[in-house]
Amino acid sequence: MMHPLNEEKVFKDPVHNYIHVEDTTIWRLINTAEFQRLRRIRQLGTSYLTFHGAEHSRFSHSLGVYEITRQIIALFERNNYSDWPKEEKLVTLCAALLHDVGHGPFSHSIEEAFHMNHEEWTVRIIMGDTQIHDILSQVEPGFPERVASVIGKTYHKPIVVNLVSSALDADRMDYLLRDAYYTGVNYGTIDVDRIIRMLRPHQGRIVVKESGMHAVEDYLMARYQMYWQVYFHPVTRSSEIILRLIFQRAKELYISGYYFEFMMKPLVSLFKDEVTVEQYLKLDEALIQTAFMQWSTEKDPILSELCSRFMHRRLYKYVELEPLDRDMIHEIRDQFYQSGLDPKYDLIIDSPSDLPYDVFHSGDEASQKQIILLDRQGKLMEISEVSDIVRSISGLQRGKFRLYYPEQKIEAALSSFSPSVARIFKDN
Amino acid sequence: MMHPLNEEKVFKDPVHNYIHVEDTTIWRLINTAEFQRLRRIRQLGTSYLTFHGAEHSRFSHSLGVYEITRQIIALFERNNYSDWPKEEKLVTLCAALLHDVGHGPFSHSIEEAFHMNHEEWTVRIIMGDTQIHDILSQVEPGFPERVASVIGKTYHKPIVVNLVSSALDADRMDYLLRDAYYTGVNYGTIDVDRIIRMLRPHQGRIVVKESGMHAVEDYLMARYQMYWQVYFHPVTRSSEIILRLIFQRAKELYISGYYFEFMMKPLVSLFKDEVTVEQYLKLDEALIQTAFMQWSTEKDPILSELCSRFMHRRLYKYVELEPLDRDMIHEIRDQFYQSGLDPKYDLIIDSPSDLPYDVFHSGDEASQKQIILLDRQGKLMEISEVSDIVRSISGLQRGKFRLYYPEQKIEAALSSFSPSVARIFKDN
Amino acid sequence: MMHPLNEEKVFKDPVHNYIHVEDTTIWRLINTAEFQRLRRIRQLGTSYLTFHGAEHSRFSHSLGVYEITRQIIALFERNNYSDWPKEEKLVTLCAALLHDVGHGPFSHSIEEAFHMNHEEWTVRIIMGDTQIHDILSQVEPGFPERVASVIGKTYHKPIVVNLVSSALDADRMDYLLRDAYYTGVNYGTIDVDRIIRMLRPHQGRIVVKESGMHAVEDYLMARYQMYWQVYFHPVTRSSEIILRLIFQRAKELYISGYYFEFMMKPLVSLFKDEVTVEQYLKLDEALIQTAFMQWSTEKDPILSELCSRFMHRRLYKYVELEPLDRDMIHEIRDQFYQSGLDPKYDLIIDSPSDLPYDVFHSGDEASQKQIILLDRQGKLMEISEVSDIVRSISGLQRGKFRLYYPEQKIEAALSSFSPSVARIFKDN
Amino acid sequence: MMHPLNEEKVFKDPVHNYIHVEDTTIWRLINTAEFQRLRRIRQLGTSYLTFHGAEHSRFSHSLGVYEITRQIIALFERNNYSDWPKEEKLVTLCAALLHDVGHGPFSHSIEEAFHMNHEEWTVRIIMGDTQIHDILSQVEPGFPERVASVIGKTYHKPIVVNLVSSALDADRMDYLLRDAYYTGVNYGTIDVDRIIRMLRPHQGRIVVKESGMHAVEDYLMARYQMYWQVYFHPVTRSSEIILRLIFQRAKELYISGYYFEFMMKPLVSLFKDEVTVEQYLKLDEALIQTAFMQWSTEKDPILSELCSRFMHRRLYKYVELEPLDRDMIHEIRDQFYQSGLDPKYDLIIDSPSDLPYDVFHSGDEASQKQIILLDRQGKLMEISEVSDIVRSISGLQRGKFRLYYPEQKIEAALSSFSPSVARIFKDN
Repeated sequence: MMHPLNEEKVFKDPVHNYIHVEDTTIWRLINTAEFQRLRRIRQLGTSYLTFHGAEHSRFSHSLGVYEITRQIIALFERNNYSDWPKEEKLVTLCAALLHDVGHGPFSHSIEEAFHMNHEEWTVRIIMGDTQIHDILSQVEPGFPERVASVIGKTYHKPIVVNLVSSALDADRMDYLLRDAYYTGVNYGTIDVDRIIRMLRPHQGRIVVKESGMHAVEDYLMARYQMYWQVYFHPVTRSSEIILRLIFQRAKELYISGYYFEFMMKPLVSLFKDEVTVEQYLKLDEALIQTAFMQWSTEKDPILSELCSRFMHRRLYKYVELEPLDRDMIHEIRDQFYQSGLDPKYDLIIDSPSDLPYDVFHSGDEASQKQIILLDRQGKLMEISEVSDIVRSISGLQRGKFRLYYPEQKIEAALSSFSPSVARIFKDN
Repeated sequence: MMHPLNEEKVFKDPVHNYIHVEDTTIWRLINTAEFQRLRRIRQLGTSYLTFHGAEHSRFSHSLGVYEITRQIIALFERNNYSDWPKEEKLVTLCAALLHDVGHGPFSHSIEEAFHMNHEEWTVRIIMGDTQIHDILSQVEPGFPERVASVIGKTYHKPIVVNLVSSALDADRMDYLLRDAYYTGVNYGTIDVDRIIRMLRPHQGRIVVKESGMHAVEDYLMARYQMYWQVYFHPVTRSSEIILRLIFQRAKELYISGYYFEFMMKPLVSLFKDEVTVEQYLKLDEALIQTAFMQWSTEKDPILSELCSRFMHRRLYKYVELEPLDRDMIHEIRDQFYQSGLDPKYDLIIDSPSDLPYDVFHSGDEASQKQIILLDRQGKLMEISEVSDIVRSISGLQRGKFRLYYPEQKIEAALSSFSPSVARIFKDN
Repeated sequence: MMHPLNEEKVFKDPVHNYIHVEDTTIWRLINTAEFQRLRRIRQLGTSYLTFHGAEHSRFSHSLGVYEITRQIIALFERNNYSDWPKEEKLVTLCAALLHDVGHGPFSHSIEEAFHMNHEEWTVRIIMGDTQIHDILSQVEPGFPERVASVIGKTYHKPIVVNLVSSALDADRMDYLLRDAYYTGVNYGTIDVDRIIRMLRPHQGRIVVKESGMHAVEDYLMARYQMYWQVYFHPVTRSSEIILRLIFQRAKELYISGYYFEFMMKPLVSLFKDEVTVEQYLKLDEALIQTAFMQWSTEKDPILSELCSRFMHRRLYKYVELEPLDRDMIHEIRDQFYQSGLDPKYDLIIDSPSDLPYDVFHSGDEASQKQIILLDRQGKLMEISEVSDIVRSISGLQRGKFRLYYPEQKIEAALSSFSPSVARIFKDN
Repeated sequence: MMHPLNEEKVFKDPVHNYIHVEDTTIWRLINTAEFQRLRRIRQLGTSYLTFHGAEHSRFSHSLGVYEITRQIIALFERNNYSDWPKEEKLVTLCAALLHDVGHGPFSHSIEEAFHMNHEEWTVRIIMGDTQIHDILSQVEPGFPERVASVIGKTYHKPIVVNLVSSALDADRMDYLLRDAYYTGVNYGTIDVDRIIRMLRPHQGRIVVKESGMHAVEDYLMARYQMYWQVYFHPVTRSSEIILRLIFQRAKELYISGYYFEFMMKPLVSLFKDEVTVEQYLKLDEALIQTAFMQWSTEKDPILSELCSRFMHRRLYKYVELEPLDRDMIHEIRDQFYQSGLDPKYDLIIDSPSDLPYDVFHSGDEASQKQIILLDRQGKLMEISEVSDIVRSISGLQRGKFRLYYPEQKIEAALSSFSPSVARIFKDN
């Protein structure tokens, strides 16, 4: 089923040095319009506004996930592990390569604002009238469905799903390394070669040799650090909030019949909840940024101000409050109203529970979320049973929450606030 | 004249680890809309289509140039070198930070297509009705003019110009390191700390201690390698050619009165050669990509095909020819005409002399292009007098040239070509 | 009190890029015979037998500790922190540079075998008839005493001791980075620049800004990983055990009046517990290795076998047992005796509690062992009060222990063991 | 002939991340006493006195050369290149691993002083009564001879010799990377993966694809830089000179019947030119350093002074002279005599032609020294025919030479020198 290229091809990659392509199907998938579109979707959304180096794309990341998967399978084949189903190689590689192909621009914010789901879009693109579907169909009948079901996690061999999507998968390994590289923080620097060497196919799933426990701890700590240092960075959250407010405002305006000086078709479909695959493929971050730039001079003051803030990086300020302060929120909102502010756009509450990423959880989770160790006697153990460190980061509760707000507006209103509310925003 | 911040601020940077901002003016300049715009201009134009990691922006690079300049001046101050004019610190740092602020989207191609010059635009932005101009004006009267004249290389103290723009300046040091980092090639990895330690202010210019000769050779070799491996990469050239053809076609169509399904104001001004500073600041790569994406379904087949090629990375193929083959070009062109092809869009000749970058030249060049060594006895020598290696890369002649063409079109026409012309395109 | 060099001098260093020496006293100390001797003492003792790259010396490490200390003080001075006593700069730098000068060859093992203490030797060398003492004396009267008391942790300003020796000091920061670099593992890769930026002199000690909590967690995790992956590596433990057995055997033989074919004076003094400073300074790892190489052909079979094992890296094998198995040790020992084996040399029990390194402990420890966070309101908190992760690695109990033994000897005796004892050593 | 291990084994290596051992013979060779001895021979001799990180051993390097060779062969096998003789794999890997096994302590200096040759010793060790010889003999009859003849460059298949020893071989690739890593300079950082990908077995030798020309230029420039920045560093030369003088003096004394307070058998054999393989294997750098440390208190003032200088790094100073100044050497020597100095020990002339390393030369060299490019048409070209850069570093002439001398002695004699001679040593 594999069709080797005459000559192995490579992509130069800062994280893996070279991405090796040996198979014709993989090569052709990379060259589709749908896969090339991932060049215009940033891997880390608005994080570039916090870490200026983080301009890397989902295109790079997708190649990286493919490469790690390829290396894992190569090791399984070299060691002739009997529990690895050799015939699943191509479907695994295709799923690894394509797993993010349905991501939209500024994915987390747009999904939240318009109730979309990138995984569904990945499946729609794989199964739709696309170049990707054509190429997969040429492998053999039913092949696109197989790839889609791996991504949808319903494939009949869980070990394949495991490699592409689990608590210790090629996806997470690549993004930790890549995001660390492009942001410049070194928290995500894991020893991926070592982790790969510790993986074993075992009775239908991927497990980790017990002697790899510290390597897994290191990987989970890297993830934990990246979440708090990069993915949940308060400045990044601020930019995501502004993005969401823009989408929200634009949709409100559209529904209310507002006339936009500048509008584009894929955005209209988005507001009407009628996006087709063809239109979706035109939705990229260039289009969003272009619309925002144009809207920064729209007549609607809320929309134009928000767009101008996003484009010129004048983000909302924030104050961090203790769990107990939650009781004050009603009072704060009241005083905002009384001072002529609009809590809907001028006061955003952000708590960890709103966060779009999943920190590692253990215990009652579905099996795909667990990391299983295999000891010398063949016994299986969930890692949090064995590792204190993993337990300590699994339970993780962050009661604190943050208020985001437009600084100058609130400063102007400060004198009309009650002393207890004013104190919160003062001296911050 | 410096106004230190209460607390030093930093930006996390993968290349320099941290960018240190100590002065209020610098901090405010970074936060202007005009400087933030550089986030939407890639440092390496279309190179990301060859090296997928190369998505880094001129924003990052500008911070890097500022940081290297800051480090050089800090060393000069720490060692109390008498030839360094201390009072020039802020103007130097501002010029370093702002030297690229006038770059347009896909700079080299757009400048070629519309006869623009980014340095002029930098000066227009610094002197125009902009946030940058406001902030510089607040330093002291005439300060914007001083910064502009450093960038324009007419400043009355050449040593300041030297630091910002010479054969061994902060600009080049940062881009070698940064482009190497983001592409993943290691050719550009120079020892910038060592080079900085070798620089000396000397009689109104920057020179290099003789014992730094090998470090300079290494730097020049890094540049040489980056030119051939990255900046002049044939695939990147192909994407630049397509970009230029798009601009050329769109302008032709506009002038001929063609009705565009999709058009935006800053583009109209561009075609009419009437761009204002305000419009220029809206011209970013997001806008260009958005226009191209929309134009990929325009009625004009040439425009839509070129745009589709660019957006989906279906680039022109190329064949490399020897200098002697130049005589054949007329014959090739003739046969293209006879086969119904359009040499204007289907056959692009690319020679090194068209290249937009300057490889190091020595000898009769203006003094800003020379690297001067200072020996123990205080004697000055131009580096190519001393180093065989530098001489060997200075004279550099590349007689070979390339033909770029749309592969399938030419393949279809191959049978109608004369044997000698057909041979060129066959088996490539 | 500082005497700046005419020109700053540098050492090229793989970890910090350059070590900067600005002061004459520091420069002269580095060039003493006593400090140069540290080139012949490995930083990681026998770890090079596990990680072949780990040949780096205490000389490198000492320069690194000095450099980090220099950077911390430079930041304190740049920001004019009032709680930093500026006049303590030189004493702090000297103590940082010299803190390891009393280390002997294969420090941990030799200290264990001969009841020595490197800190005492450091003080003896600083206060003895040495080049170091001469140079320190020239700074001002009483200066050697001050440096010695910083190292002895009795200096009257605890903040100085804090920088050189605490739970988050320049010593630990350098060794994590350096040991990670030379072994090639990446667990120790901490963001030392970030940690330095988070340190604050505060009321007579060094504290960490609260926002640096994650950076400290990362540092402590790096330490934790390095302990288990590198410092406590079972193969390294095996080599340390053999080393200790050699010292033990040689001393036994010496005391019993055995005639050594090869003997050297400093070793005799060691056996007689009469080492002078002059002799101690001749004790380096070259001498130890040379003696062992010669002793590998001594008549005493135990000594020659152990020396041959060490020199040619034929280490003892090990088996890991559960805490419950401790009860079996007597039985195992008995059977060793009955089979003609010598438990003293053929069966070594190694438990974590014997480990020579201190993993991070919190709570009831002396203040130098604590890491204190400073929040925005000026409140101080011990880090384990705030961080779940730190708590999880602080309590760390490792009940497992290991038996080390000469493989072939035990295999030969296996048939005479009881089944339950034989099972332990079989199939290992 | 290969005997795969049950499970692939790895060594952690900072340069190649992991060294992979797949074959039993390789594994057993690494564990021989003779190969383990390489841990006590530094890769860069006395360079650690200039670059404190350069303590890495020939053991590390030998593993690295093996690993690169393994990777090259793996690529040849993966691509099924017909010109690669598959049956030569094991002999090639063994020769790569063992090629340096005959190196003595401080190799270059000891070879110069005692007219030895490490390549001959390698062959003697492989063919002698050694563990290595035993293991090789078990592969098949005549196998040790085959390995030895690859190292002796007389093997009947030059392509095998090519891989292990040529102008672009695994040996040089590893040492550039490794020496750069451990010294901390970045000049040697080559893209070894890229070079490996460009190698092709072709008609009985290894050639480079033409498109790899820039990669080869980069490699040769890295070598050039490493020679001048590291291998020929004037301070390293000074330490090598002192080392040679020590050997010279000790031999003189021995021959003259001097009674040494401290002496060891292998040294006696060395002086008498009667070293056996068994004694040679005990000659390591620990022994040399131990002897020097003891000799630093010998009665002979020349020997003790030189040894003390070496051990405590009080090296000779140097002055660099122009080619023309060669005429002055007789005069300088005369004045040394007249001032009671001993030119034999107090004045050492060092010119590039004495250098023990071979910079790249092209042209009339034997074929093993040439790097051959293969173009698309199958034409072969020597690289210096094509590359200006290579030509520029090939001809390299360094007419300058240096005088090394004990500073204080010469300063004391300065007043008795003629003005022209005094001037040379003054103000240096």
